[in-house]
Amino acid sequence: MNYKLTVVLLFLMMVPFLGSSQKDSDNQGYFSPNTNQPGKQYPMVNSQGKVRARVNAPDANYVKLDIGGVKYDMVKTADGMWSGESEPQDEGFHYYQIVIDGAFVNDPGSKSYYGAGRWGSGIEIPAHDQEIYAMKKVPHGEITQKFYFSKVTKTWRDCFIYTPPNYHKDLDTQYPVLYLQHGSFEDQTGWSSQGKANLILDNLIAAGKAVPFIIVMENGYASKPHGQSEGKGPPSAFEEVILKEVIPMIDAEYRTLTDRKNRAIAGLSMGANQTMRIFMNNLDKFASYGGFSGTSNYPSSDSIDPVTFLNGAFKDGAAVDQKSDVFFLSIGTTEPVPFPGSVSAFKDMLEKQGISYTFYESPKTAHEWQTWRRSLHEFAQLLFK
Amino acid sequence: MNYKLTVVLLFLMMVPFLGSSQKDSDNQGYFSPNTNQPGKQYPMVNSQGKVRARVNAPDANYVKLDIGGVKYDMVKTADGMWSGESEPQDEGFHYYQIVIDGAFVNDPGSKSYYGAGRWGSGIEIPAHDQEIYAMKKVPHGEITQKFYFSKVTKTWRDCFIYTPPNYHKDLDTQYPVLYLQHGSFEDQTGWSSQGKANLILDNLIAAGKAVPFIIVMENGYASKPHGQSEGKGPPSAFEEVILKEVIPMIDAEYRTLTDRKNRAIAGLSMGANQTMRIFMNNLDKFASYGGFSGTSNYPSSDSIDPVTFLNGAFKDGAAVDQKSDVFFLSIGTTEPVPFPGSVSAFKDMLEKQGISYTFYESPKTAHEWQTWRRSLHEFAQLLFK
Repeated sequence: MNYKLTVVLLFLMMVPFLGSSQKDSDNQGYFSPNTNQPGKQYPMVNSQGKVRARVNAPDANYVKLDIGGVKYDMVKTADGMWSGESEPQDEGFHYYQIVIDGAFVNDPGSKSYYGAGRWGSGIEIPAHDQEIYAMKKVPHGEITQKFYFSKVTKTWRDCFIYTPPNYHKDLDTQYPVLYLQHGSFEDQTGWSSQGKANLILDNLIAAGKAVPFIIVMENGYASKPHGQSEGKGPPSAFEEVILKEVIPMIDAEYRTLTDRKNRAIAGLSMGANQTMRIFMNNLDKFASYGGFSGTSNYPSSDSIDPVTFLNGAFKDGAAVDQKSDVFFLSIGTTEPVPFPGSVSAFKDMLEKQGISYTFYESPKTAHEWQTWRRSLHEFAQLLFK
Repeated sequence: MNYKLTVVLLFLMMVPFLGSSQKDSDNQGYFSPNTNQPGKQYPMVNSQGKVRARVNAPDANYVKLDIGGVKYDMVKTADGMWSGESEPQDEGFHYYQIVIDGAFVNDPGSKSYYGAGRWGSGIEIPAHDQEIYAMKKVPHGEITQKFYFSKVTKTWRDCFIYTPPNYHKDLDTQYPVLYLQHGSFEDQTGWSSQGKANLILDNLIAAGKAVPFIIVMENGYASKPHGQSEGKGPPSAFEEVILKEVIPMIDAEYRTLTDRKNRAIAGLSMGANQTMRIFMNNLDKFASYGGFSGTSNYPSSDSIDPVTFLNGAFKDGAAVDQKSDVFFLSIGTTEPVPFPGSVSAFKDMLEKQGISYTFYESPKTAHEWQTWRRSLHEFAQLLFK
C-alpha cells in the first residue's frame, strides 16, 4: 500500500475547513472576530465597529444584515455573493441575524449564542477595555456543566459552574460562591459564553484584584408542573430551585464556604430583579448583591415606598445596611427607557433608607453584554473581602 | 406603584419564547426532538424516521430540506410557511441544513452542532436502543471545559473532560482515563454533545456495567506555527499535544490513575486513525485501544504487510497482543466504501499476527454518530477490568 498517499490523506483530513480565501483589498482595516466559526473570514469588523457581512445566496431576491435594530440592505456582487455593511456598532457583543427573502436565519459565518429567545448569530465589536475579558497567559479556571433532576420543576436542568484556577489541584481549599443570573430570553450558557465571566475572573484573580471564588450560573426560567403552581407570587419556582436544590447541591459537591459572608447573588436585567427578591428574602443566606441593569421595581420609575415595596423588605434600612457587605448596582449610560428611571428610583429609595451601595455606570453602552461584563468586572473586585 | 403589574410583567419576562402553537392534525405521530431549540415545534420527526421541516421565508423562490445527502423540495403552504418532509432517515443523530434560494443555512428550529466543518443543524431520529444514551434518573457525571495554552501549537486550546458521578464529592478516589477523539471536520465538542458520551457512561456506571472513569476529549486538529513543522509524518502536532501537554496536565490536575493499565485511547474515523498511531507508538503509556469506523490503513483496502505498516508496529504480534488489554474495532453495517474494506484488511492483519481483538458491528447504521455511540457503549464495558 501507498504510505505517502496515506500520510497525504491523513493530512488533508486534518486541514480545517477554510472559508473564502479571496484577497480583498477593500477589507483593509477589517478583521474576522473570534465570534466567527473556525476558518470563516466573514463577518468582519473594523475599529469603528462597522460590521461587514458576506453571504452566498445565489437565487435570493434580497438579503439584509439585521443588527442593532436596523436592517441594512446587502447587494449582490460580481461573484454572486451578497455583501453589506452596518453603521458603527457599540463596543462589545451583539446578537444579529441575516434576512434572506424574508427568512430570519443565522449568518453561516458566526458561531451560535443563546439570546433573544434563540440560538443565533453574535458578533464581537472591538472595545477599548477588551483587556478585561481577553484570553491571556494567566492561570485559567474551568467551566463545568452539571446536570440534575429538579424535584421542584420535575424536569432535568443543568447549571454552569466556574471553578477558579487550581480548584482541581488544591484539594484543601474552600471557596466563596457567587450565584450569577442571565437576563430575559437568555439562559445559563450566556455568562460563560458571550458574558466571558470566566475570563474576567481569571484576569482579576491573576492581577490580585479579586479573591478566587466559584460562580454558579443557572437558568432563570423555572416553572412547576401544570396545576402545581402556588399562584401567589414569590417564592417563584426559580427561587425554590436555587434555595432548596442548587445551593445545597453545590455546597455538598463543591468545596465551598457555606456561611452567608461567603455567598453572593447577582444578575442582569430580569436576573437582577429575580436575585434581588431572593437576596432580600434570604439575608441569612447571602451577604452581597449585584444588580446589573435592573432592580425589582422594574419597569416602574415611580418613587418607591419602602413600607410596601417587596413586602417591606427595605423598611428597616439600618438592618439591611448592616447585613449587606456589598450592595452593587450598575447601568449602561445609553440604556433605554425604562431602565435609567427605574434604577434611579431604586437608588433614591436606598439613599432615603440610609442603605449604602456602590453604583457603576458603563460608558456608552446600552442594555447589552458589554455593560454586564464591565459590571461583573467591577462587582467581582468588591466581593468576599 | 402597581405591584400586580410588576408581578405580571415579571411573569411575562419569564415565559419562554414559544414556537408556533398551531394545531396541526396532520402532525399525528410526529414529535419535536430534543435537538430542537427550546420551545420550537419544528423540525418534527416520526417513528419511521421521517423529518418534517417548516420554515418562514415569505419571499423565497424555493426552499429545500437537505438531509442524508438528498435535497427535498419544500412547498409554500397556505399560511405562507414552507413545509417539507424527508424519506425515513437512519436511527440516531444527523447533521442537516435548509436551502433558501441557494443559501445553505441552519434551520432556525434546531440547535447547533459542530460537524461537517461548521456549526450547523442536527436532528435526533428515534432509535430502538436510545435507552443507552437517554437522560435517566441515575447519578450523573459532569462535563468540564478546560482552557490551556499549547506550547506545541502556540495557540489557546480547550478540551472537554467527563468526570464520573461523585468525582467532586469522593476526594480520595482516583480514576482511569480514556482519551476519546472525534472525526474529520468535527471537534472536541462532538462526543459530549451529539455523541452523548456522558450519558452513555452515566447509564453504564449506574447499571454496574462499566467502572467509573474519566474521559478527555480533545481537538484532533493541531498544527505547529508556520515554518516549525517537522514535515516528516508522525509524530504529528496532535500526537505531541496529547503526549507532552494534555496527559501530563490531566494527570497533574485531576485525580487519575497514571499507570498504562489505567489509560486508554480511542477515536472515530480520523480519530481512530490518529489514536491508533499514538497507541502503537506509546504502548508504555496506554494498555487499551478503540477504533470506531476507522483504522490507520485508511483509505486503503489492500492487504497489510505488518513488516512495513506503521514502521513495523504490528510486526511482533505476540508482544502487541500481550500489551493490549483491549483492542476494540467497530463499524456500522451500512458504512460506505472505503470503510468496510479498510477495516476488514486491518482485521485480517491482526488475525494473521495473532493479535486478539473485539469487533462490534452497529446494525443498520452508516458512518454516523449512532455507530459511534453504540461503539462507545460496547467499548466502555470492556475497559479497566
